[in-house]
Amino acid sequence: MTIESDLADLKRELAETRHELGVLQDVKAVRELQFKYGYFMDKCMFPAIVDLFSEDAVLYFLGGIYRGKAGARRLYGGATGLNGPVDGLLFEHLIVQDIVDISPDRTHAWGRFRTFMQGGVHETHPNPPPNIPSQFWEGGVYENEYVKEDGVWKFAVFNYRVVWQADYETGWAHSKTEPLMVSTQTRTFPENPRGPDEIVSAPAPRWPRQGVHPFHYPHPVTGEPLG
Amino acid sequence: MTIESDLADLKRELAETRHELGVLQDVKAVRELQFKYGYFMDKCMFPAIVDLFSEDAVLYFLGGIYRGKAGARRLYGGATGLNGPVDGLLFEHLIVQDIVDISPDRTHAWGRFRTFMQGGVHETHPNPPPNIPSQFWEGGVYENEYVKEDGVWKFAVFNYRVVWQADYETGWAHSKTEPLMVSTQTRTFPENPRGPDEIVSAPAPRWPRQGVHPFHYPHPVTGEPLG
Amino acid sequence: MTIESDLADLKRELAETRHELGVLQDVKAVRELQFKYGYFMDKCMFPAIVDLFSEDAVLYFLGGIYRGKAGARRLYGGATGLNGPVDGLLFEHLIVQDIVDISPDRTHAWGRFRTFMQGGVHETHPNPPPNIPSQFWEGGVYENEYVKEDGVWKFAVFNYRVVWQADYETGWAHSKTEPLMVSTQTRTFPENPRGPDEIVSAPAPRWPRQGVHPFHYPHPVTGEPLG
Repeated sequence: MTIESDLADLKRELAETRHELGVLQDVKAVRELQFKYGYFMDKCMFPAIVDLFSEDAVLYFLGGIYRGKAGARRLYGGATGLNGPVDGLLFEHLIVQDIVDISPDRTHAWGRFRTFMQGGVHETHPNPPPNIPSQFWEGGVYENEYVKEDGVWKFAVFNYRVVWQADYETGWAHSKTEPLMVSTQTRTFPENPRGPDEIVSAPAPRWPRQGVHPFHYPHPVTGEPLG
Repeated sequence: MTIESDLADLKRELAETRHELGVLQDVKAVRELQFKYGYFMDKCMFPAIVDLFSEDAVLYFLGGIYRGKAGARRLYGGATGLNGPVDGLLFEHLIVQDIVDISPDRTHAWGRFRTFMQGGVHETHPNPPPNIPSQFWEGGVYENEYVKEDGVWKFAVFNYRVVWQADYETGWAHSKTEPLMVSTQTRTFPENPRGPDEIVSAPAPRWPRQGVHPFHYPHPVTGEPLG
Repeated sequence: MTIESDLADLKRELAETRHELGVLQDVKAVRELQFKYGYFMDKCMFPAIVDLFSEDAVLYFLGGIYRGKAGARRLYGGATGLNGPVDGLLFEHLIVQDIVDISPDRTHAWGRFRTFMQGGVHETHPNPPPNIPSQFWEGGVYENEYVKEDGVWKFAVFNYRVVWQADYETGWAHSKTEPLMVSTQTRTFPENPRGPDEIVSAPAPRWPRQGVHPFHYPHPVTGEPLG
């Protein structure tokens, strides 16, 4: 073994180490991006949310598909004009249970998360928004994609699926069989200035119907693909 | 200082660095194993859950001890035959607050997690399972052990403790003093084909009684053992 | 390129790698410190909690400011004398959604977390504490600072803000407009032997009023400061 070959081995091994460390740094950045999204959503900070999306992002939400930053802008806040918290409106998004994977070239990532939400309108609100239930629980799963542009992670595909919703008064055992909140959009953009670019013809089932939001990862032990 | 001793120092330091990096990679794998378990539980994906256990696993659940993969198979799904989500059944397991530690040789791990669960049966279910409450909350703590076999992390000891349960209608202040859900198993395997290998004679207290599920770690500042 | 300059490059690059790895180890330690705090709070392990604070810690809680470990001791348990769980008292603190940042010299850290709490007193409790509601939900956000002393991370600034509370019976849409739980301290220490060192004259708004607990980090994409 010569000194030169030892040096070459060390360089290669250090480069591998730095790559693997970089993957963990990416995981931290991606999970925090999703968590920061959640803190913004709590407080209706919609312009800050729109800035989290890449120019070419695609968003799946309540039966609509929104394309690009312009689509994100119509989805977040475009329907309400809100920017910042409003007395009497509650939209607490707990975002948890992160599974984040990074592509070998460290430019793309996939993340599964879930949210558990407390939403609604306080009885003292002088002018309750007509399409927000008085008080409701929501559980849902994200299977999102992220892209790193100029060293900064952004949302590339936002794919949220509501699993269940229920009025506080009834709980989930006696919730309506029709979803509490659905897209009120039946026409697309630009005919509908706040609408999605596309309407999903067969949306995923909602509680009390069940289904599995597809996993971006295989079974962690067998390596087999998951439904 | 010679070049040879510099090289030896670098090799040793790089090996230490790789070991510490590997520990963080193990932490990621173990916490995601637990989180993936949770996503499977949401959807009654019982065969996928059984595959998460090592051959020699031990499972503590609701007053029963189940041994080995065969025991895991009896516990998960053996009692129900379910494989996959069922319309009208809700078993949402939020799994959070991970504390994961890795053994010096990187073959064993210990993890504390908690779950907050929304469970029950929708009123439209045509044939409600008799032993599942209509709608209930559950809070519990895991203190699990994991083993790395052929580079793959698996559950070695599954030690879940229900802290509290309550019907949605009453909440936790007015829950029954008898636990909502208990093991219905009073006989062991093989006499009872779906039973545990052993029945715990003195199960941990349940709400409204309180207790501490032992911690696998010492106090993080003083280093002293915790109850 | 000489062997000597190659060696110097490797040493420098390895030192950088070790620093970045150390940052991730610090992140793990800080998030687990906060999570371990949560597990202690569940079980009223107040002396263990006091040991998590640095000598010079500052605590902001329910309109009071408590200084130093002595202040922490008055806040945690000083008002109740509790040490360990009590049958019939529930204080489940889910702590989630961690955003942790480490200072360049790795001696200070900042963390944003949230909690979702189930609290209250079971109806069988023989002597219900007068200032604890029968059963209530609480959501809140932490923006804490941490300090590393002799290699051990501790709380330096504990800055918790209750966002909303509601009785289980009413939910958040019909909660009282006066906060459920407020500091009962109107006088400071030492006149009040369990009081804070200072009383905040203008406490943060509470549900149904809204507000933003300031973020310790800028917008993750634009880099601009957040409200």
